[in-house]
Amino acid sequence: MDLNSDVGESYGRWVLGDDAALMPYVTSVNVACGFHAGDPTTLRRTCEAAAAAGVTVGAQVGYQDLGGFGRRFIDMDLIELTDHVVYQIGALQALAAVAGTSVRYVKPHGALYNTAVHHRGQARSVVDAVRAVDPSLPLVGLPGSALLELAEAAGLRPVTEAFADRGYTPRATLVSRSEPGALLSDAAEVAARMVRMVTESVVTAVDGSDVAVRAESICVHGDSPGAIAMAAAVRDALRGAGVDVRAFA
Amino acid sequence: MDLNSDVGESYGRWVLGDDAALMPYVTSVNVACGFHAGDPTTLRRTCEAAAAAGVTVGAQVGYQDLGGFGRRFIDMDLIELTDHVVYQIGALQALAAVAGTSVRYVKPHGALYNTAVHHRGQARSVVDAVRAVDPSLPLVGLPGSALLELAEAAGLRPVTEAFADRGYTPRATLVSRSEPGALLSDAAEVAARMVRMVTESVVTAVDGSDVAVRAESICVHGDSPGAIAMAAAVRDALRGAGVDVRAFA
Amino acid sequence: MDLNSDVGESYGRWVLGDDAALMPYVTSVNVACGFHAGDPTTLRRTCEAAAAAGVTVGAQVGYQDLGGFGRRFIDMDLIELTDHVVYQIGALQALAAVAGTSVRYVKPHGALYNTAVHHRGQARSVVDAVRAVDPSLPLVGLPGSALLELAEAAGLRPVTEAFADRGYTPRATLVSRSEPGALLSDAAEVAARMVRMVTESVVTAVDGSDVAVRAESICVHGDSPGAIAMAAAVRDALRGAGVDVRAFA
Amino acid sequence: MDLNSDVGESYGRWVLGDDAALMPYVTSVNVACGFHAGDPTTLRRTCEAAAAAGVTVGAQVGYQDLGGFGRRFIDMDLIELTDHVVYQIGALQALAAVAGTSVRYVKPHGALYNTAVHHRGQARSVVDAVRAVDPSLPLVGLPGSALLELAEAAGLRPVTEAFADRGYTPRATLVSRSEPGALLSDAAEVAARMVRMVTESVVTAVDGSDVAVRAESICVHGDSPGAIAMAAAVRDALRGAGVDVRAFA
Repeated sequence: MDLNSDVGESYGRWVLGDDAALMPYVTSVNVACGFHAGDPTTLRRTCEAAAAAGVTVGAQVGYQDLGGFGRRFIDMDLIELTDHVVYQIGALQALAAVAGTSVRYVKPHGALYNTAVHHRGQARSVVDAVRAVDPSLPLVGLPGSALLELAEAAGLRPVTEAFADRGYTPRATLVSRSEPGALLSDAAEVAARMVRMVTESVVTAVDGSDVAVRAESICVHGDSPGAIAMAAAVRDALRGAGVDVRAFA
Repeated sequence: MDLNSDVGESYGRWVLGDDAALMPYVTSVNVACGFHAGDPTTLRRTCEAAAAAGVTVGAQVGYQDLGGFGRRFIDMDLIELTDHVVYQIGALQALAAVAGTSVRYVKPHGALYNTAVHHRGQARSVVDAVRAVDPSLPLVGLPGSALLELAEAAGLRPVTEAFADRGYTPRATLVSRSEPGALLSDAAEVAARMVRMVTESVVTAVDGSDVAVRAESICVHGDSPGAIAMAAAVRDALRGAGVDVRAFA
Repeated sequence: MDLNSDVGESYGRWVLGDDAALMPYVTSVNVACGFHAGDPTTLRRTCEAAAAAGVTVGAQVGYQDLGGFGRRFIDMDLIELTDHVVYQIGALQALAAVAGTSVRYVKPHGALYNTAVHHRGQARSVVDAVRAVDPSLPLVGLPGSALLELAEAAGLRPVTEAFADRGYTPRATLVSRSEPGALLSDAAEVAARMVRMVTESVVTAVDGSDVAVRAESICVHGDSPGAIAMAAAVRDALRGAGVDVRAFA
Repeated sequence: MDLNSDVGESYGRWVLGDDAALMPYVTSVNVACGFHAGDPTTLRRTCEAAAAAGVTVGAQVGYQDLGGFGRRFIDMDLIELTDHVVYQIGALQALAAVAGTSVRYVKPHGALYNTAVHHRGQARSVVDAVRAVDPSLPLVGLPGSALLELAEAAGLRPVTEAFADRGYTPRATLVSRSEPGALLSDAAEVAARMVRMVTESVVTAVDGSDVAVRAESICVHGDSPGAIAMAAAVRDALRGAGVDVRAFA
């Protein structure tokens, strides 16, 4: 089982997250590419830290919107979106190579991630970009998303992920952030949930029922001391349960 | 002898230059990388046009300053400048690959080009970036510049260039744009000067004296109908004089 | 009857439109505010030209998206959108004052204009911004739009506009740009249509039927020599028909 | 004596400083204007907080360089720089008015502040902008700077400032950040120094000698818990010494 987290999201004077503290607990890092976050020096240093920690680097591509941190849907021309994704992957590939590592997967960020769940046009734009740059790069997304369906149809490797600190509905979708039960904050509870998800392919939904969730990777956060402690708890609990915690790529 | 020109400088709604009209007359194109000009779709399409025309693609790296078109000196941290150049080259490499071609050299743009003539710190930042990305990539610059001196010392291939439509001082430097004789507009005169430069390594300076100028490439412009006609005149005159006009890379 | 046109859309090195050539033929100019187009110097000079020509200045506010020229819908937080609009109006107010004139109305640009036709949330954000800055500023929009309905409800003055070079459906909406008849290019025909619209409140729709269209302003374009000729034709035809052509504000 | 501090420097997802915690201890706040930091919503909310705290608002204008946080010198065209400053002041004026307050002075930020000490061209550009927008707005800067000299010559009110946590040379200039003694971290020592500066117009220089320093305002920082404690210490010490701590504008 892989543990992934967003990193490289500082920008110039603005620091976000404590990537160095997080690295020991994850196996893959989704490095921003400069469009929604991440200046070139931050990206190169983040890749160096990942290389030093033996963590796999992925390209986290997003909308070109620093002010919105890539969290606003943008109704882009689909051809332009493909070119934006190619540009971002290439930029990070060069910085990763300079840092002694390489980009081994792609994951959309924020509103692009959410949009690619259901918007087949934008999902296909991302798939087209990855296939054009390097068809051996896996694409990470939500199980059942248009993104992963189209990735598979295009011959790319789809990688499903679960979210450690998010509540699930009885239909195995995420509870909306505006509703109760959307976010979990107890590290021990989250760790136990993820062990059950990995070993039994089941998660307890917000209504108390069991719901089937299968994923190849678990997304954890690193943007607060509590988040890093939770990542550590998940990692330790999985190992304690005999789960092989390592990068999928 | 190589003929190079700046292309890919449109940005979104704003069109600059007529790259398609220029391509038949040059052998190398310096494609913008998105920091001073050029959106991702423009860059990919420009690379496709270059590939179709059999023209060599170079990465024209610049300051991150769309508002200033890369023409304002920015006193950047030198490490950050290196990372900015790596980022730009990588982004264009991916788009060029998608377009069926590849980046085969690097040339700084605008104020970065002028700064790298004498500012050894920024010149070294550019050299460091190119060496880190791919030490087989030549660097194009002004003869006698810090950029080319440091490139050579670092084991990179320095490529000298002359400017077709610029006046030269008796010391073989360019006449400042604020002084008389800085810009030449007569296509036939410019073509004859370049033939003499290539065949005799001599150019007539503003004071009428002969000055030695050696270069491996000639920079022409394409941002006006007159400029494209001048590029055509230079190309035809060189061929007429028996000069082998082809890309250096 | 007022004739309005978009101006101030150049950005740094990139020139768009020939504002100086257009000014004599219009009575109001929608000056970009730097978010979708227009650098500060362009905006100040455009205001100076408007002042010299006796043309009324309006603030054309848009999404913060230079790469998309404000033509991509962005799903912004509604509070943030209000603040973005306030910011833009204020910036232009200062530049207009320095140029010896003032901002006398507001008009949304591109995707924000189209979105404000039906998206009540974003329409209200624009209305809230204008009311907060100066409730005496009229808002220009499409007849029947949510923008104008909410503007009126908020005590602002709504100003309806028609588009000189666009085809109308039998329901008085614009023919989509992707369908036949969307754009009209014959200056004489366009001028005659506008005279009829002003004098009879009727336009011939794409299916040949007559459709009622009432507007206080007519939007003409200035981004090509043909567009400027068309603006001149509309102005002259209206005057020839005895229509008083002057700014609404 | 006035106490001023930089605020409003968050940008979208990125938080910088704890403006709410700082407000009670200062009398004037230099609010960023969106070019080097500060999105529109941050600026409006910061102005609201200042209004609620009874703190005077100033416009902190900077280079258009989010990636460099306005700390990189940019060799701008002087006319363009003036327009950039006008644009920023106007934008903040509108947001301040919406927030129930107004812009009452201008202070350059970062590299523009440092450049305006000696670069008469850029200093004059800032002065020209302030005079064009509102000649009643004071300009804050370093004693002896070109900025304040030209401000005074232009009929603007120059306001000198001292830096609470910076070491001074025997010539009354700031110790360079790269040298020992540049930064002071002991709140009690800093507070005592500022009391002496206000009551005796003297500061102890790095070499132990006394140096004359006169200022109408003291700049304190608020970007760390320690900085806020230092601001509180300076405010309390001044009050304890009978100094009237209030805004200069």
